[in-house]
Amino acid sequence: MEIAVDAMGGDKAPVVEVQGALEAARELGIGIRLVGRKAVIEKSLGKNWDGENVTVHHCDEWVRMDEAPLKAVRRKKDASIRVAFELVKKKEVCAVVSAGNSGATMAAGILALGRMEGAERPAIASVFPGQRGPVVLIDVGANVDCRPRHLFQFGIMAHAFASVCLGIENPRIGLLSIGEEGSKGNEQVRLTRELFESSSLNFWGNVEGRDIFAGKVDIIVCDGFVGNVALKMTEGMAEAFARMLKQEMMRSVAGKASLLLGSRSLKRFSEKLDYAEYGGAPLLGVNGVGIICHGSSSPKAIKNAVKLAARYAENDTLERMSGLLLKNGGE
Amino acid sequence: MEIAVDAMGGDKAPVVEVQGALEAARELGIGIRLVGRKAVIEKSLGKNWDGENVTVHHCDEWVRMDEAPLKAVRRKKDASIRVAFELVKKKEVCAVVSAGNSGATMAAGILALGRMEGAERPAIASVFPGQRGPVVLIDVGANVDCRPRHLFQFGIMAHAFASVCLGIENPRIGLLSIGEEGSKGNEQVRLTRELFESSSLNFWGNVEGRDIFAGKVDIIVCDGFVGNVALKMTEGMAEAFARMLKQEMMRSVAGKASLLLGSRSLKRFSEKLDYAEYGGAPLLGVNGVGIICHGSSSPKAIKNAVKLAARYAENDTLERMSGLLLKNGGE
Repeated sequence: MEIAVDAMGGDKAPVVEVQGALEAARELGIGIRLVGRKAVIEKSLGKNWDGENVTVHHCDEWVRMDEAPLKAVRRKKDASIRVAFELVKKKEVCAVVSAGNSGATMAAGILALGRMEGAERPAIASVFPGQRGPVVLIDVGANVDCRPRHLFQFGIMAHAFASVCLGIENPRIGLLSIGEEGSKGNEQVRLTRELFESSSLNFWGNVEGRDIFAGKVDIIVCDGFVGNVALKMTEGMAEAFARMLKQEMMRSVAGKASLLLGSRSLKRFSEKLDYAEYGGAPLLGVNGVGIICHGSSSPKAIKNAVKLAARYAENDTLERMSGLLLKNGGE
Repeated sequence: MEIAVDAMGGDKAPVVEVQGALEAARELGIGIRLVGRKAVIEKSLGKNWDGENVTVHHCDEWVRMDEAPLKAVRRKKDASIRVAFELVKKKEVCAVVSAGNSGATMAAGILALGRMEGAERPAIASVFPGQRGPVVLIDVGANVDCRPRHLFQFGIMAHAFASVCLGIENPRIGLLSIGEEGSKGNEQVRLTRELFESSSLNFWGNVEGRDIFAGKVDIIVCDGFVGNVALKMTEGMAEAFARMLKQEMMRSVAGKASLLLGSRSLKRFSEKLDYAEYGGAPLLGVNGVGIICHGSSSPKAIKNAVKLAARYAENDTLERMSGLLLKNGGE
């Protein structure tokens, strides 16, 4: 199995990407194809590189973080993210991992591989740590204006992903709303609820913002606007909490001593909250595997994204997902 | 100054309401009118009650948490929340505080007092602790489907509220979206941005989920669906973080010792995050003052809500708010 890593994405590309790729190759035994400018990649690989399991695929261009995604991907035929997905299409690699412009990753994935049969709208799912294991939030930014059918399909795709890649048996699906009663929420939520209720999926009902971390459900469905706000809130809150807690601790001697004694526990705690743990967000609903990483990903996040990509590309996840969509009225 | 407290609202009514009212009367010197069933309120008041500053206004009915708000408020003419707002109308009290059904509080406020001149849609603002002081999030649940004009007005109302009641000079307003660039977000956000940009308000631009706690802006504007999800997420996260941190600490001897030593700092930290600190969420855009408290409010939260209500009712906040709305095209 070989996986393409977009070496030109990310805030510290290609250094972080190269480091993550080397770790993935060594620790997980997965072959990596680094896609991007050969000269800079090889410089980053440096002496650590024995050539085995990590190869370089040269291309000249890349999409910057501030570029309009669709336009850039269409125009730059030799951009790393586009070349990486073309490698999937040619079956030279089985997945793409990128910490670059996430809109461009989505656009390139759709352009090169096409929509999955049955999927009307591809979506981005984010996996993060809840109190009782991983929770999948979908969509976190691909679709800002959704129809109930789209939200329903997000749930189906996340069901297939969570069952196979996260090993959650018959995952419970919650619909993000502003009250548990079916009558609450906006029109979009009320109509989506009906679709879930008449399906064979393990639909739990409406969930609220407070339930995201409570482990009540394994999958939370929402439109990309709400999902993106929620995702970024979790990042912002984890940082703000840690800073505010430390500030408070530093105000007294006992607090300082507590910080010292508790440093290892605190470290383990922040690792639990770290989104690097799951590496990245899978792009669901396209004919192939793409994992979108945070622009400021660490090498560890890249490595874990490669791991997630491998799990998603293994078995027949894509076929199962497509089959489930078609079975539930997808076209 | 006298403030009506809905003694029949809240999960532990009337005990918590009575306790909070007594604390407010004693510590803040504000007169309280407890509205609800006289017998149960007086039982709760018990021996602690010297009669001074706290009086009881009897009514027979109340709105339960699970009732459809508008219907219940219309039907139950003698419900505590309705009677409380009627007291404002008659100028017997100058504000209402309720931890009951929040939809009913809003409906009763609008029904009894009417919309403020210039305000098209009343909204609920929530005040919570950011890294650099209080942050106002508006709307947190009153309006699930908003037009750009409504969002613009939420910003104007929050501006008046934050200036006068929180003492923030020329508060910075941010528009919640999924990217800082003006081109990002959905149609609603793009059009709202134009309205803010052509106003004289201190408009900062788009903000993202991660900025809610960062103190980049003082006011964050969003529709009631997104705002409610965000508000409940902050509650859920604070609880989940505290639990996960404690779990991690209890796993080692050093961690346990750290917990012991740091207990006072941790307590101060959780007080900072505690929404009880600001008591409740003001209902803006009606002709009078109403503060909506969390159903599980503590006596401290009720007391602080009374404090906030008093500040909102003082001065000419309502007139200033209405004037600002009219100046900015409100009808």
